[in-house]
Amino acid sequence: MVGGGPGAFIGAVHRHAAALDGEIELVAGAFSSIPERSHAQGKELHLEPSRVYDSYGEMAEKEAARSPGDRIDFVSIVTPNDSHFEIARTFIEAGFHVVCDKPMTTTVEDAEKLCRLVSKHDVVFALTHNYTGYPMVKQARALVNAGRLGDIRKIVVEYPQGWLATRLEAEGLRQAVWRTDPARAGVSSAVGDIGSHAENLAHYITGLQIDRLIADTTTFVAGRKLEDDANVLIHYKGGARGILYASQISVGEENNLGIRVYGTDASLEWRQEHPNYLHVRYQDRPEEVFKRGNPYLGEAAAHNSRLPSGHPEAFIEAFANIYRNAARSIASRLTRVHPDPLDLDFPTVSDGARGVHFIHKVIESGKAGAWIDAAYEAP
Amino acid sequence: MVGGGPGAFIGAVHRHAAALDGEIELVAGAFSSIPERSHAQGKELHLEPSRVYDSYGEMAEKEAARSPGDRIDFVSIVTPNDSHFEIARTFIEAGFHVVCDKPMTTTVEDAEKLCRLVSKHDVVFALTHNYTGYPMVKQARALVNAGRLGDIRKIVVEYPQGWLATRLEAEGLRQAVWRTDPARAGVSSAVGDIGSHAENLAHYITGLQIDRLIADTTTFVAGRKLEDDANVLIHYKGGARGILYASQISVGEENNLGIRVYGTDASLEWRQEHPNYLHVRYQDRPEEVFKRGNPYLGEAAAHNSRLPSGHPEAFIEAFANIYRNAARSIASRLTRVHPDPLDLDFPTVSDGARGVHFIHKVIESGKAGAWIDAAYEAP
Amino acid sequence: MVGGGPGAFIGAVHRHAAALDGEIELVAGAFSSIPERSHAQGKELHLEPSRVYDSYGEMAEKEAARSPGDRIDFVSIVTPNDSHFEIARTFIEAGFHVVCDKPMTTTVEDAEKLCRLVSKHDVVFALTHNYTGYPMVKQARALVNAGRLGDIRKIVVEYPQGWLATRLEAEGLRQAVWRTDPARAGVSSAVGDIGSHAENLAHYITGLQIDRLIADTTTFVAGRKLEDDANVLIHYKGGARGILYASQISVGEENNLGIRVYGTDASLEWRQEHPNYLHVRYQDRPEEVFKRGNPYLGEAAAHNSRLPSGHPEAFIEAFANIYRNAARSIASRLTRVHPDPLDLDFPTVSDGARGVHFIHKVIESGKAGAWIDAAYEAP
Amino acid sequence: MVGGGPGAFIGAVHRHAAALDGEIELVAGAFSSIPERSHAQGKELHLEPSRVYDSYGEMAEKEAARSPGDRIDFVSIVTPNDSHFEIARTFIEAGFHVVCDKPMTTTVEDAEKLCRLVSKHDVVFALTHNYTGYPMVKQARALVNAGRLGDIRKIVVEYPQGWLATRLEAEGLRQAVWRTDPARAGVSSAVGDIGSHAENLAHYITGLQIDRLIADTTTFVAGRKLEDDANVLIHYKGGARGILYASQISVGEENNLGIRVYGTDASLEWRQEHPNYLHVRYQDRPEEVFKRGNPYLGEAAAHNSRLPSGHPEAFIEAFANIYRNAARSIASRLTRVHPDPLDLDFPTVSDGARGVHFIHKVIESGKAGAWIDAAYEAP
Repeated sequence: MVGGGPGAFIGAVHRHAAALDGEIELVAGAFSSIPERSHAQGKELHLEPSRVYDSYGEMAEKEAARSPGDRIDFVSIVTPNDSHFEIARTFIEAGFHVVCDKPMTTTVEDAEKLCRLVSKHDVVFALTHNYTGYPMVKQARALVNAGRLGDIRKIVVEYPQGWLATRLEAEGLRQAVWRTDPARAGVSSAVGDIGSHAENLAHYITGLQIDRLIADTTTFVAGRKLEDDANVLIHYKGGARGILYASQISVGEENNLGIRVYGTDASLEWRQEHPNYLHVRYQDRPEEVFKRGNPYLGEAAAHNSRLPSGHPEAFIEAFANIYRNAARSIASRLTRVHPDPLDLDFPTVSDGARGVHFIHKVIESGKAGAWIDAAYEAP
Repeated sequence: MVGGGPGAFIGAVHRHAAALDGEIELVAGAFSSIPERSHAQGKELHLEPSRVYDSYGEMAEKEAARSPGDRIDFVSIVTPNDSHFEIARTFIEAGFHVVCDKPMTTTVEDAEKLCRLVSKHDVVFALTHNYTGYPMVKQARALVNAGRLGDIRKIVVEYPQGWLATRLEAEGLRQAVWRTDPARAGVSSAVGDIGSHAENLAHYITGLQIDRLIADTTTFVAGRKLEDDANVLIHYKGGARGILYASQISVGEENNLGIRVYGTDASLEWRQEHPNYLHVRYQDRPEEVFKRGNPYLGEAAAHNSRLPSGHPEAFIEAFANIYRNAARSIASRLTRVHPDPLDLDFPTVSDGARGVHFIHKVIESGKAGAWIDAAYEAP
Repeated sequence: MVGGGPGAFIGAVHRHAAALDGEIELVAGAFSSIPERSHAQGKELHLEPSRVYDSYGEMAEKEAARSPGDRIDFVSIVTPNDSHFEIARTFIEAGFHVVCDKPMTTTVEDAEKLCRLVSKHDVVFALTHNYTGYPMVKQARALVNAGRLGDIRKIVVEYPQGWLATRLEAEGLRQAVWRTDPARAGVSSAVGDIGSHAENLAHYITGLQIDRLIADTTTFVAGRKLEDDANVLIHYKGGARGILYASQISVGEENNLGIRVYGTDASLEWRQEHPNYLHVRYQDRPEEVFKRGNPYLGEAAAHNSRLPSGHPEAFIEAFANIYRNAARSIASRLTRVHPDPLDLDFPTVSDGARGVHFIHKVIESGKAGAWIDAAYEAP
Repeated sequence: MVGGGPGAFIGAVHRHAAALDGEIELVAGAFSSIPERSHAQGKELHLEPSRVYDSYGEMAEKEAARSPGDRIDFVSIVTPNDSHFEIARTFIEAGFHVVCDKPMTTTVEDAEKLCRLVSKHDVVFALTHNYTGYPMVKQARALVNAGRLGDIRKIVVEYPQGWLATRLEAEGLRQAVWRTDPARAGVSSAVGDIGSHAENLAHYITGLQIDRLIADTTTFVAGRKLEDDANVLIHYKGGARGILYASQISVGEENNLGIRVYGTDASLEWRQEHPNYLHVRYQDRPEEVFKRGNPYLGEAAAHNSRLPSGHPEAFIEAFANIYRNAARSIASRLTRVHPDPLDLDFPTVSDGARGVHFIHKVIESGKAGAWIDAAYEAP
């Protein structure tokens, strides 16, 4: 692991998620750019001191120098956005597979370089757009793919949060400081941190490609340098319309990612705060509530579920699905066996590039106050 | 009553609503432009045959000729949009108070003429934006007015329906035919029929004025002449941002009007399909669920409520609140007593003009594909 | 109307409900045993003074003396429980049809006398167990009758309220005073006032007959003379099991009547505070949510519904269904036409007798602390 | 770990839960009474072969023979009910701490022997009544303890499931076979497997002691030897009343454990399928919805929570809380440091004995058809 030192929320989440299935063991880390903090974290995690490193560079070098069976199988990158690219590049070039937090990079150029590097070095690259790890999101995708909704006409995807409604970054809250700092977060705060999840979720479920968009981006909190609210209208290729919004100033909202997809035959709704349920609605028969863990669900939902119905699964398990699927895909590579296709279901470097492109287009349209072309295909 | 002949859904709703409190009696009507249908309806309603008229013109004339204590106190107009103006004008000029369905007119010019007529003839004019008749909507407004939300930053108001997802107008369904016919409905279908309710609801609760907007309007159903889906981004005066959408092709949605208002201190959410509940959320304390009929609610909620808590009220009662408040205001005029201020709480001709202006601006922006100025003040 | 004078909650509800459809007109009343109060109420209701009576006896006599087309068609009895019997008897013997509030009488003997009187005088007798007037309750019954649940194994029906958690009757609250006074309410408070609704609801939906029961009845509020909480286990004929409870001291509960019925093939759940929804659950396919106003519902649900889907109906409409169906059945008698079978769907004098018997058995078992035989068939 | 061999659902849950925090490592096991199966499971879990044992007896003996720093710190027992006692006794006598699945034993005598053994050998004994591990259950308890509900008057706790609505045991489903077999499960199926969770939950939140109870127990599925449905009325010491039911034949229910506690001042409701929310209701102010992860919650809720608000936690995390708290308490013993009082919060051997006693009393009352004394204090 690179990053995830003392006090880093998302580092701990990654570790919980990776540990859940007992298939992944944390054996080495560069947990902070401050060596003392890195070693302190390594100690707390009971790692062998010789594998706790002062820097990610040292880690990549020394792990690569170990014998194949004795080095890390992949690296997990959980640092702020601005460092993802260099760290990922370093490890990929050292021959390691990568799990990386999102957004993938702070520029489209870096994102596309990563696409090429992944291709060139033929490594597995997984991006932790964790919300697509939920079983009922996979069921939603399966229903769309099976044509159960008919042709998709409209997508409404929203991600309101309220935690940045005041200037927490001025109070020194670590999570707030870097997310609102252009030097660490990139061109965007709300879209980068959460709007990109919304884009990924809509794309994962429907497969639709954005054609054009217009965005209204606002910085509500005085003194903040990046937008904390973004409302976007979207034209998808093929004629579907979309509304996507992300907000960090929606007081009282916790982590209320939700999506509704309307087709010609049926619609579906899923909400992250109640992740075990998928609502499917029709004009001519009763609403159906699909519930996780039941035999009537598809194989992707089943593959990414651990508990019987009624025993709720939640955030950690969804996150763990990304890790487990990626780890199994990596294991298949390492052991040269054919992977289970269901294990190949995790966000890739292409998803990452598309996400970074989306972030930039929203910010660009917000500044222009006009519809812009936003079609994209990752290299 | 003018309109509301055999098969007209909304006419029956108006009659249920007006009848509920036993304070309004239906005594005369021109229920259809086809005299036979008008008389058939009058008979079914047990009206005195002499007061069932062949046309609204005849009704206005003959009722006005009756002695003051013996004629109608007000007229209720429940015809398709295109005829509202002429009927309202006729009755206002004959000295009658008016309750009129929405949208008020099909052009801004007519709307503004009505404003001036109401002012000139000093009549009561109530518009049946019925959703603002719900007690918990009134409580929402009271909370905003009392500053409980702090400064308003964002409004998300949505009104998805699915009933026009197919071309019902081609099958002759009466409700669908006129709503999608430019000659009857005016320039808009989705925005006119339901988006205007959304605008009215947001304005009623927050008092905010629209400054600019950009709209994405779409006609999904082939052969339809008006838009059946409209997504709008809004800048309110004072800096708040808004998302408003109306859709008639959102399969599986019934009548899912909902609003969320986010302030600096708290936010609120209300949904029409669960109208007895108002959710108020904070960053630092538990969500509160306000429930209709309780002593902790404000006087407007109490004034517009009939049943104890837990005995749900719904659509008819909200509609009846518009009627009852308007009727009591009319009665105050007729009896020259000072009205109860709580009875003056109903949508007015100014709200109607603002709504018609909004409809036109959405359609205009949709065609232009650009932000446009949408500020308005009714004359 | 007999009863429903100033301040009586339920009298006003009856009037709203009866007025809703414009098919019933209130023309006469004895609204209070205190003549001044009766006349005051009559005046407020704009009744002809000559038809506002000093007592129900006078009303029965004088109305009966009017010519057939000019007298009341039926009487509505909305007084406290202890007077239902005498009033009903008086009007039945005078040849009038009756709508009566529940519980029907305070003793089983009186209830059975009423059964015989109704039979002897061949009048329509409707009891306002209003909760069975809800369309989705009728849909629940239709699903059970159609065998969609398989064989019924278990019923859980509950009716918690919190309004009597303190000794409101000592503060003079009218609604509390008579409901907790054995001289007015009879042997029971919680079971009589609300437990009887629960029994009626379970019976209406499933048709099951109680065989045996054991009850735990408690008076939590010091100084109160009747039970304010009752928990009952039930054996139904045919082997089904039941839990029924009614509580007036469940702080924070408003009017939370709810029922779950479990069969061998499926189960259903309905809750009065969200009356437009009926949940049907299976072991092997997604939960279905039936929603009022949709074409997939049965004819009884449709017959008892006024508004399109998504335009919520609630308490008043359910109450109005009892009135409208009873009134139409009465009209059929008066006009000697064959009634629409759907109009015959309202609680009868037999339901009333069964309910009174149930109330007494619960209290009896509570005192005995033992299972008792509770089978019953009304005469 | 003892038990949890191939195909055992609950063994895998225990392992996920124990692994989550990275504080517990699985190092040895006797996973099945069939040695081959035990070794197969050990291999799948990447255990050192020398520490995968043929039997729990061998495991206790050989682990005890290892040096203190090199042997297991505690054993986790996840076998069917009938073997808990002997296994626990063996390990306790060998000096090991114990985490044991519930119900603790199949007889009260064995349960009480375990109490004395735990006391005599001074070991930590944790019982996995996992539902009390949920943070919002801990918040519920904190509210009750702080007097926020006033005096408790009524508890309604229910646990309906539907999975045993047909005779799955005849089809060989492993989970169904032993749970419905008196030789493995003991005297009860529904009460033992899930009713005991309901009892534990009610006791944990309120601290109330059962005084008397009457139960109605039924076997609905023909050929089944134990009850699959149990409805219980309870008198608690101090005057509170209770309804508790457990059902395995409630078709369409998944794992719907829920509790409502009514006090003189407020009530609360919590449902396991939506575990991040706690509803608190009052007579005189809006309902409050407490949500996991927020700063307004008490220290116990915070201590047993890993993720920020809105990032839902669920079943595994609640289970993990039992493990983590127990493990930390064990670690305190092993390192002779004073434990954090918050880590001592897990179900104990006394809770286990009380639960086993409760199970037997329900079955006894069901057979007797009468109220029986059910007061209990563990030795």
